[in-house]
Amino acid sequence: MAIVLGPNQYGKAENRLVTVTRDGDVHTIKDLTVSTSLRGDLAETHLTGDNAAVLATDTQKNTVYAFAKEAPVGEIEDFALRLGRHFVSSQEAITGARVLIDEHSWNRIEENDHSFVQGSNEKRTTAVTVEGDQAWVVSGLKDLVVLKSTGSEFHGYPRDKYTTLKEVTDRILATSVTARWRYQGSGIDWAKSFAEIRAVLLRTFAAKHSLSLQQTLYAMGEAVLEERPEVAEVRLSMPNKHHFVVDLSPFGLENDNEVFYAADRPYGLIEGTVLRDDAEDPGQAWYSLPAF
Amino acid sequence: MAIVLGPNQYGKAENRLVTVTRDGDVHTIKDLTVSTSLRGDLAETHLTGDNAAVLATDTQKNTVYAFAKEAPVGEIEDFALRLGRHFVSSQEAITGARVLIDEHSWNRIEENDHSFVQGSNEKRTTAVTVEGDQAWVVSGLKDLVVLKSTGSEFHGYPRDKYTTLKEVTDRILATSVTARWRYQGSGIDWAKSFAEIRAVLLRTFAAKHSLSLQQTLYAMGEAVLEERPEVAEVRLSMPNKHHFVVDLSPFGLENDNEVFYAADRPYGLIEGTVLRDDAEDPGQAWYSLPAF
Amino acid sequence: MAIVLGPNQYGKAENRLVTVTRDGDVHTIKDLTVSTSLRGDLAETHLTGDNAAVLATDTQKNTVYAFAKEAPVGEIEDFALRLGRHFVSSQEAITGARVLIDEHSWNRIEENDHSFVQGSNEKRTTAVTVEGDQAWVVSGLKDLVVLKSTGSEFHGYPRDKYTTLKEVTDRILATSVTARWRYQGSGIDWAKSFAEIRAVLLRTFAAKHSLSLQQTLYAMGEAVLEERPEVAEVRLSMPNKHHFVVDLSPFGLENDNEVFYAADRPYGLIEGTVLRDDAEDPGQAWYSLPAF
Amino acid sequence: MAIVLGPNQYGKAENRLVTVTRDGDVHTIKDLTVSTSLRGDLAETHLTGDNAAVLATDTQKNTVYAFAKEAPVGEIEDFALRLGRHFVSSQEAITGARVLIDEHSWNRIEENDHSFVQGSNEKRTTAVTVEGDQAWVVSGLKDLVVLKSTGSEFHGYPRDKYTTLKEVTDRILATSVTARWRYQGSGIDWAKSFAEIRAVLLRTFAAKHSLSLQQTLYAMGEAVLEERPEVAEVRLSMPNKHHFVVDLSPFGLENDNEVFYAADRPYGLIEGTVLRDDAEDPGQAWYSLPAF
Repeated sequence: MAIVLGPNQYGKAENRLVTVTRDGDVHTIKDLTVSTSLRGDLAETHLTGDNAAVLATDTQKNTVYAFAKEAPVGEIEDFALRLGRHFVSSQEAITGARVLIDEHSWNRIEENDHSFVQGSNEKRTTAVTVEGDQAWVVSGLKDLVVLKSTGSEFHGYPRDKYTTLKEVTDRILATSVTARWRYQGSGIDWAKSFAEIRAVLLRTFAAKHSLSLQQTLYAMGEAVLEERPEVAEVRLSMPNKHHFVVDLSPFGLENDNEVFYAADRPYGLIEGTVLRDDAEDPGQAWYSLPAF
Repeated sequence: MAIVLGPNQYGKAENRLVTVTRDGDVHTIKDLTVSTSLRGDLAETHLTGDNAAVLATDTQKNTVYAFAKEAPVGEIEDFALRLGRHFVSSQEAITGARVLIDEHSWNRIEENDHSFVQGSNEKRTTAVTVEGDQAWVVSGLKDLVVLKSTGSEFHGYPRDKYTTLKEVTDRILATSVTARWRYQGSGIDWAKSFAEIRAVLLRTFAAKHSLSLQQTLYAMGEAVLEERPEVAEVRLSMPNKHHFVVDLSPFGLENDNEVFYAADRPYGLIEGTVLRDDAEDPGQAWYSLPAF
Repeated sequence: MAIVLGPNQYGKAENRLVTVTRDGDVHTIKDLTVSTSLRGDLAETHLTGDNAAVLATDTQKNTVYAFAKEAPVGEIEDFALRLGRHFVSSQEAITGARVLIDEHSWNRIEENDHSFVQGSNEKRTTAVTVEGDQAWVVSGLKDLVVLKSTGSEFHGYPRDKYTTLKEVTDRILATSVTARWRYQGSGIDWAKSFAEIRAVLLRTFAAKHSLSLQQTLYAMGEAVLEERPEVAEVRLSMPNKHHFVVDLSPFGLENDNEVFYAADRPYGLIEGTVLRDDAEDPGQAWYSLPAF
Repeated sequence: MAIVLGPNQYGKAENRLVTVTRDGDVHTIKDLTVSTSLRGDLAETHLTGDNAAVLATDTQKNTVYAFAKEAPVGEIEDFALRLGRHFVSSQEAITGARVLIDEHSWNRIEENDHSFVQGSNEKRTTAVTVEGDQAWVVSGLKDLVVLKSTGSEFHGYPRDKYTTLKEVTDRILATSVTARWRYQGSGIDWAKSFAEIRAVLLRTFAAKHSLSLQQTLYAMGEAVLEERPEVAEVRLSMPNKHHFVVDLSPFGLENDNEVFYAADRPYGLIEGTVLRDDAEDPGQAWYSLPAF
């Protein structure tokens, strides 16, 4: 028996990067949180503390800021690819890189040229994996909080000795969507693809009459795949943010789905994958990402 | 010498209330976090544990939910006044009440009748104080995050032996505004007043050329008072969310206010009050609220 | 009518300061979060943007770090007094300062000379106010989470039409204590005083049979005042962290105070003051601190 | 081409469970956060909304609370195994279950029989996976924050055009350890194993002279495997919580590793696996857990 080093990676997490681009008097800002991780022939630093192969995480941070100046940041997928390919191509010991970027949203204040108000808490995300000269792009969104005040039922589930839940044919359905979709093919217009996938997700959540949150989740993933050929696979994590009808009968009041208590914990958690049966092999696309 | 009971209050904090109102097929939701506190002749429960005067915090919670059904919630100021007056008028021992409400924003999904997406993290707030048959309303907003990419300078400050900051004539100015304004007079249209005050705050932040965040803060409060006669006083708390220009010179790159590091901590914190010199006496309006 | 500037202050919040002191091979660390605020003749920066009186918040930050080197940090009260007095005495326009410090706890790893493991989330706090040549010290603790599994009752409260809570003669009582105590007199041994006050608070929480959380709060404050003559006044904020007995009867099980659901929100919030009737005048001790 | 359902699971997350056990007058408490997830033949609910196979997440919650009464909770590994096996054996459609438990620490207040003070923020964890009649146990800890004030160096790393970091032979090394270890074999004394693994992790962090955080990580995992034969594999995630030496030279002061700025973001993130080369096959042990 021997003790050995298994999979590992290291990097700089949560670099907060803001850029200002000027088109005459009109300014545009980008607000990103960038995390980089490198993999490769890193046994020595683990076993002996010899750091000859370890590009410092401080250098990774510097690279993020320098790259933001050397060329326009552009779409987060392109920026992540540039960073990942740079690390893998410039460091002999480094064979793989993963770059995670969250983009935070801002809106203009009343068509002002250089003043902005922060948008919703929702983030556009990407997770780019580079391995040698291959690369995979998994983009997505998180903290997209949605709610339907009707059009949701839940019944027909098995009743064992611990079941007390009442069946309902009308309930509030609310969730905070985390979605990740794996791209295949090439020549993708990242910004347009993101905008249309987000619209499909919202439209399907709103339109689909729901018999379970699982059904809604599947319908959302399926609609993305039906409408967007560049997507191979969608993974969704959707907490069921319970809104309980408050029992007002002790006060002589009926509550016909009008007054709700929005609970924090516990919450249902529904997670699933929808994919094409002929999707490209995922390769390292999901390396070290959450399963859902 | 004797040991005595000083000021005190008790209540139920952070009741999460969501209501659905139906106008035919069209639904409207309200999403509130409601906290109530009561004051009065409460010495016995502190000294002997006799709870005859202590309307249970559980009852306060029930009252919030029942009141949401008994009549339309309406504007948060009206709902807070109803609750506060109820507690003071219905419990002999209770002489004062304070009700805090945060309203969370939602937007419709593509004109759908009953589907919504959560808006920004910004909250509309109110703090209502009832004392006997008097009442004061302090409304506001919080987590309104704004940024100017130019139009902000900072120089002319004293230099002592610990001063290293460089003077700048162009910087990013970013802050998360917490504003509270005290109303005076009566017959106020709460929703309209809120919308217009928020617009004035945003417009002034954007338009005012800034020589210090204090100057911006004062201008924002002053503009509210100039335009809104129903406001007696404005208190503002504005953290200076530092965006530092990254030094790219080691990499042979200039950084002409293009690439910034957005820092978390520490942060400047600018707090101030702007008021009319003939404002109504504040009475208990600010009781137990933060100073800024 | 004129619009005027009211109370205001500004400073640098949440400076994260860690110091290492070496006594031979034995190291001692201090881990502090320091916030400073200044007040004084600051009308010009608000009205015109003239910053001649505005010691930059960056300079305040530098001063915190430099002072940590110029002399041993010592107890947080002493460090806060040094900082506050420095700002007021060295800047002509500055007439008042408030310094807030939170101290985070660390324990040695097995008597190792220079390795430490972080202690509980509880923080020792101080809030020092300097005004001219006067100074006030309000120290305290926060995030001290305590629980009694018996010895707590709640009954005898009024029942109105919204009351559904059942009376109980045995319940879990849990809270997260925020305490602030105002010192009077001089020559106080801050470290010893803190340790003994903390012990009194814990011992009283444990020993006092509780008929209401208010009674427990008062007893805790009273015990501090009885045992510690250097304390003039204690303010306590104690959320009632509800632990609900789970109804297991649908499953044919009794639940004799054995299985609980620990709820997040809403929570009761009990706040109060206990003081000596002959306490020194508080002066500016509580300036801009939370009421409880 | 067809669109198909891929891997999925659903359950109830973050059930907050507190139990009180009485041994005469002496009480013992357990404070757990329990999350359950089920897998199996769940296509119908996704495709048609037929919930005949979907044991409601509300029922999963009820089961957690009922099981806590039906037999002593015991160690978190045993409780998770009971829950996981119950779901898989009692529901025909359910072929797999994953149960996550975090245990929160409490200490007695001065040997009091029934009063407790919350310990550190550190949590003991377990992730149990049941698949048919097989089961895997991955236990661990998280939020164990440790710091060395000396005995850490970092140098010898490659210098590319973006490298500005200075080499150091003495620095503060601080991290928040998340560790997960996979058990193999049977008859394990969970409590004893946890206590000894935790002690090994702390002792190794303290004793190992560090040339890189990777070296410290590997040494910690290796020491666990050397001393605990019941462990097949250890995965560690260790953020480098940077403590930067403050430059005090502008103030004429030297800073010989005495005064530090503790930074929030960005942070280094070091993640790795240490395992036996003859470890049992992991099977489903890591299903849907974070990679590190």
